[in-house]
Amino acid sequence: MYEIGVVYRNIQRTDPQVASELAPFGSATVHEAMGRVGLMKPTLRPIFAGAQVSGTAVTVLLQPGDNWMLHVAAEQIRPGDVVVAAVTTDCTDGFFGELLATSFKARGARALVIDGGCRDVRALTAMAFPVWSRAISARGTVKATLGSVNIPVVCGGALVHPGDVIVADDDGVVCVPRAGAAAALAASSKRLVNEDEKRAKLAAGVLGLDMYGMRAPLAAAGLRYIDE
Amino acid sequence: MYEIGVVYRNIQRTDPQVASELAPFGSATVHEAMGRVGLMKPTLRPIFAGAQVSGTAVTVLLQPGDNWMLHVAAEQIRPGDVVVAAVTTDCTDGFFGELLATSFKARGARALVIDGGCRDVRALTAMAFPVWSRAISARGTVKATLGSVNIPVVCGGALVHPGDVIVADDDGVVCVPRAGAAAALAASSKRLVNEDEKRAKLAAGVLGLDMYGMRAPLAAAGLRYIDE
Amino acid sequence: MYEIGVVYRNIQRTDPQVASELAPFGSATVHEAMGRVGLMKPTLRPIFAGAQVSGTAVTVLLQPGDNWMLHVAAEQIRPGDVVVAAVTTDCTDGFFGELLATSFKARGARALVIDGGCRDVRALTAMAFPVWSRAISARGTVKATLGSVNIPVVCGGALVHPGDVIVADDDGVVCVPRAGAAAALAASSKRLVNEDEKRAKLAAGVLGLDMYGMRAPLAAAGLRYIDE
Amino acid sequence: MYEIGVVYRNIQRTDPQVASELAPFGSATVHEAMGRVGLMKPTLRPIFAGAQVSGTAVTVLLQPGDNWMLHVAAEQIRPGDVVVAAVTTDCTDGFFGELLATSFKARGARALVIDGGCRDVRALTAMAFPVWSRAISARGTVKATLGSVNIPVVCGGALVHPGDVIVADDDGVVCVPRAGAAAALAASSKRLVNEDEKRAKLAAGVLGLDMYGMRAPLAAAGLRYIDE
Amino acid sequence: MYEIGVVYRNIQRTDPQVASELAPFGSATVHEAMGRVGLMKPTLRPIFAGAQVSGTAVTVLLQPGDNWMLHVAAEQIRPGDVVVAAVTTDCTDGFFGELLATSFKARGARALVIDGGCRDVRALTAMAFPVWSRAISARGTVKATLGSVNIPVVCGGALVHPGDVIVADDDGVVCVPRAGAAAALAASSKRLVNEDEKRAKLAAGVLGLDMYGMRAPLAAAGLRYIDE
Amino acid sequence: MYEIGVVYRNIQRTDPQVASELAPFGSATVHEAMGRVGLMKPTLRPIFAGAQVSGTAVTVLLQPGDNWMLHVAAEQIRPGDVVVAAVTTDCTDGFFGELLATSFKARGARALVIDGGCRDVRALTAMAFPVWSRAISARGTVKATLGSVNIPVVCGGALVHPGDVIVADDDGVVCVPRAGAAAALAASSKRLVNEDEKRAKLAAGVLGLDMYGMRAPLAAAGLRYIDE
Repeated sequence: MYEIGVVYRNIQRTDPQVASELAPFGSATVHEAMGRVGLMKPTLRPIFAGAQVSGTAVTVLLQPGDNWMLHVAAEQIRPGDVVVAAVTTDCTDGFFGELLATSFKARGARALVIDGGCRDVRALTAMAFPVWSRAISARGTVKATLGSVNIPVVCGGALVHPGDVIVADDDGVVCVPRAGAAAALAASSKRLVNEDEKRAKLAAGVLGLDMYGMRAPLAAAGLRYIDE
Repeated sequence: MYEIGVVYRNIQRTDPQVASELAPFGSATVHEAMGRVGLMKPTLRPIFAGAQVSGTAVTVLLQPGDNWMLHVAAEQIRPGDVVVAAVTTDCTDGFFGELLATSFKARGARALVIDGGCRDVRALTAMAFPVWSRAISARGTVKATLGSVNIPVVCGGALVHPGDVIVADDDGVVCVPRAGAAAALAASSKRLVNEDEKRAKLAAGVLGLDMYGMRAPLAAAGLRYIDE
Repeated sequence: MYEIGVVYRNIQRTDPQVASELAPFGSATVHEAMGRVGLMKPTLRPIFAGAQVSGTAVTVLLQPGDNWMLHVAAEQIRPGDVVVAAVTTDCTDGFFGELLATSFKARGARALVIDGGCRDVRALTAMAFPVWSRAISARGTVKATLGSVNIPVVCGGALVHPGDVIVADDDGVVCVPRAGAAAALAASSKRLVNEDEKRAKLAAGVLGLDMYGMRAPLAAAGLRYIDE
Repeated sequence: MYEIGVVYRNIQRTDPQVASELAPFGSATVHEAMGRVGLMKPTLRPIFAGAQVSGTAVTVLLQPGDNWMLHVAAEQIRPGDVVVAAVTTDCTDGFFGELLATSFKARGARALVIDGGCRDVRALTAMAFPVWSRAISARGTVKATLGSVNIPVVCGGALVHPGDVIVADDDGVVCVPRAGAAAALAASSKRLVNEDEKRAKLAAGVLGLDMYGMRAPLAAAGLRYIDE
Repeated sequence: MYEIGVVYRNIQRTDPQVASELAPFGSATVHEAMGRVGLMKPTLRPIFAGAQVSGTAVTVLLQPGDNWMLHVAAEQIRPGDVVVAAVTTDCTDGFFGELLATSFKARGARALVIDGGCRDVRALTAMAFPVWSRAISARGTVKATLGSVNIPVVCGGALVHPGDVIVADDDGVVCVPRAGAAAALAASSKRLVNEDEKRAKLAAGVLGLDMYGMRAPLAAAGLRYIDE
Repeated sequence: MYEIGVVYRNIQRTDPQVASELAPFGSATVHEAMGRVGLMKPTLRPIFAGAQVSGTAVTVLLQPGDNWMLHVAAEQIRPGDVVVAAVTTDCTDGFFGELLATSFKARGARALVIDGGCRDVRALTAMAFPVWSRAISARGTVKATLGSVNIPVVCGGALVHPGDVIVADDDGVVCVPRAGAAAALAASSKRLVNEDEKRAKLAAGVLGLDMYGMRAPLAAAGLRYIDE
């Protein structure tokens, strides 16, 4: 249950080195390394291409059409954080724009992930402040109703606890729980090595059917080849 | 993070009396009583009108196009439970139908809430087994990939722990955390009394503007009446 | 442009007899009679089947997640009105429920058309108070931000001025401008007569191809019959 | 590729007895019996609950906002047919209403499946003429641009050839190719027998885990039971 | 009510200087300056990034799958206009492409805003002719059914009168009514000055909480800080 | 009806020269040249801008959340092919990424069109391997359930037979049946010549109204010019 009207100040962040080292693996690899879990819905898209970040989550729960809590959240940001904003109901309003991005950046935030709308995308692109959002909308918001900061939130269908690691790139956004972050980093690293080997073979013309030993299980499943 | 391939057998259920007594208040009242939290998205709709249930959650995490875990979940059902099924990715397939409903009912389940599709709706209606789903679809599913049973899941955008209380009716589905269930019941009860008083006044022609004392705050907010 | 924070009290309503007599023709006939204009999007659906109403529009502009203005609107309702509520941004929250319906009904409102969500649908059905909405949602709303009452609004993609006629049934909702209401009533009436004649012929097996004289224009457009 | 501006008059219909006998099995069973193929998307929904039909397909290709070809199709209907209407682009307009239904019924049509909108739903319900559509919309259409009748069409994502069997009920719509209809009937029949046996066992409390012998494959897949 | 089959030739355009000077403020600032109204839905997106225009509206009402009226509109374009095209029903067809853009550009149009689809996006990008549309689709349209030119239209949920100012950029599209354009320009200008001051403070690490004086109202609303 | 569990090895491909020469005409021109048919829905979008390809279709039918058949398809690819992947139910999972792209490219594939999700878009962009997909999603898939290769499939609402020509660019994807490919090429070529002439006239200020001779039919349809 969401607790409304509270700000938790002393959250436990994942080790910053682990949090930072997950970025280069990207959301697809990290999500696979964790056993195909933790991914946000593909409705969350980057506002510009090419950004690839990871960092520790500061979470925010917003009310529809109201960005008050993003200002409250700014104070809780520490260098290396990624702000994760959920909304209590589906809303595409532009909760976040250039001014808040200036503040977040000054506080050391690396990115925003918001299950709502974003605006000032040209300025944000120029600032190179990456945002993953469900919409781009010029529509402004009010500051009238409390939400919360640093409570567990559901963003893009994924559960995020404050202090978890967020990994985001052009493929999407994945949340790595704090307790599993080191393991996810190790598994991602191992997975990448495997991928390099596989890539070389496939580029040389080896088929996945042979490289992965799929022919026998496919035949066992009943696959028939027809040459008519 | 979702844990894949596990079944928790000894979950702690909310007190059955509390869980059962929440039903008559309905999802809107209970959700208000909790502070407007815990509600699933309105994309989850009942397959027939008029059902109103509450019960303790047995949770299931399904894979797309695969209902294997619903069979695993059946064994964990106890009388008074409501099964809550999430899927690791958006999928409208008909994961659940008459046969599973027969089994769930025999085990004592009161309802199913599924963030996926349901089929055999005519038979389910005849059986009076209520289902809240995001789609109705005849499409069948396979039994090939593991999910989990009785782990915390995100269903319809709401976090549900096994043993929480689910309250569902024509307005939607709300999840009441186990620790807050007794308080939610008390608050709902109090709220309903208030609503009875208000209803009588409004029916007699009293305006909400007066009953709720809204005229002063509206004027303070700058509302202007124009008589041209 | 929407004017925010105003309530127009002296709106000019369509003649009540004209407004009332449009109901039995239904949205499809009235919309055709007007030249296929004025229809709201099919995303607005009735919360129960079978209601068929018409009445003069009292309009409301709501803010997302905020139903304050519905209370302000209640005071402006006169017998025979239909309340039409737009929202400044897409929002499925349950802005309207049993208590407001009790108040609206006591004031003489015939129905609500809302480009947002509705709740307490079981109670509203029992009260026989019809609502056309874009969603059913238990989610409650706040009372914090001003909108307006009796300004022109866009609801379901259709422009509605206060005092226009709203015709709504199982097929949807159409807005008839005040200045054109008498003409629309006459045209609807004439159209219905025509439909009765056509229905009888078609039921007797006459083809539309012949009844409407379509064969020549179809041939002229190049339609070819193939008997292979 | 769609051929535009043609009407095929001599289509080969599935044996009428086979076509008719598929109805009672319903879309879910027939679709399973065919190997889980042929199902239309769940966006196609019945306009009223409880209809369950099967019949031979007369196909129509419509242009957006234009129902001219439904009139052309009416002439090609024979008793026992189900009209299947595709549109060249997504469009929710009310292509079909009471008058066309009167004509279709007089020609012997059992139902309409349309990947577009339908109107006059109250009248259609009173006539007991079932329609599966992607929308209900009062919006009328023109008669200006040619489509085709009795060409293969894609409706709701499923390929339908004229003369195929359509099976539709509350769960959705499935297309059974003419060449496979007898086999689908036999397989559905066999499947139903199996379902009766299974239903009795499940009602008696037998678990699907045991009835289907799932425990070993689940264990082989690595499912772990945790009793903490 | 839409008037069908008419072209208004003598529309009153906003002062061209005012219309042109709104562009650099962008849709977010102008929409805020007007009191958060007039914005089209975020479903309208630019076909390429970076365009930022304003101009006087020439409006068009199209029928689904039919772009006839865009040719009629071309004749009404004067240098500095932005064409705003609504459709009588939702339709993603490619109503507009390179040839019409060539014509519109030759007439002096600055952009197109269309609540439908657009095609030839590569060519339009090369021509630097900006389009805001709800879809990109290669699908062509017919020229068969009348709509209108220069009547008030609802586009993207916003009411647009011919001669109003349209401001569009990467954040979306806003309509500024002719009568309020000068005031909107003045308010936007003032707002921008304020934003520059705020940006500098925030970049220097000042919190919005302090800059906007939010701490007291947040406390009054009940916000609690928890340090556990 | 889809045949499940089969791979057709000896498909008949369209003449490779014809297949290749269609690319420069683009999806809009080719689709118009064919009579406005064969286009996939605009929900299929390129993962990066600027790609323009044509080639012969190798078709794949996938199961939701399962990319096994893409590996089977790889073996059937010949230089000049475009892989077209349908899914038996709507699913946005990332069925395809860098490793499969490496394999497809090594086999000579020119592109992938998939009615599902794609991942590794940064790497695919760097490889210049174009993909048209309905979603971008990091979510991985399993290899558990059979589909088919080189059967006719419905992808993006369009029917595609193996060996047909696929033409894809920024405007979308069109399928040209093998039997009509040469004619489509000729018609596209002719159409392009016409477009060049038209473009020059329109750029010189000639109106489409005059160039296309629309004034008379518009008047005949009743268009009225109003100069008030």
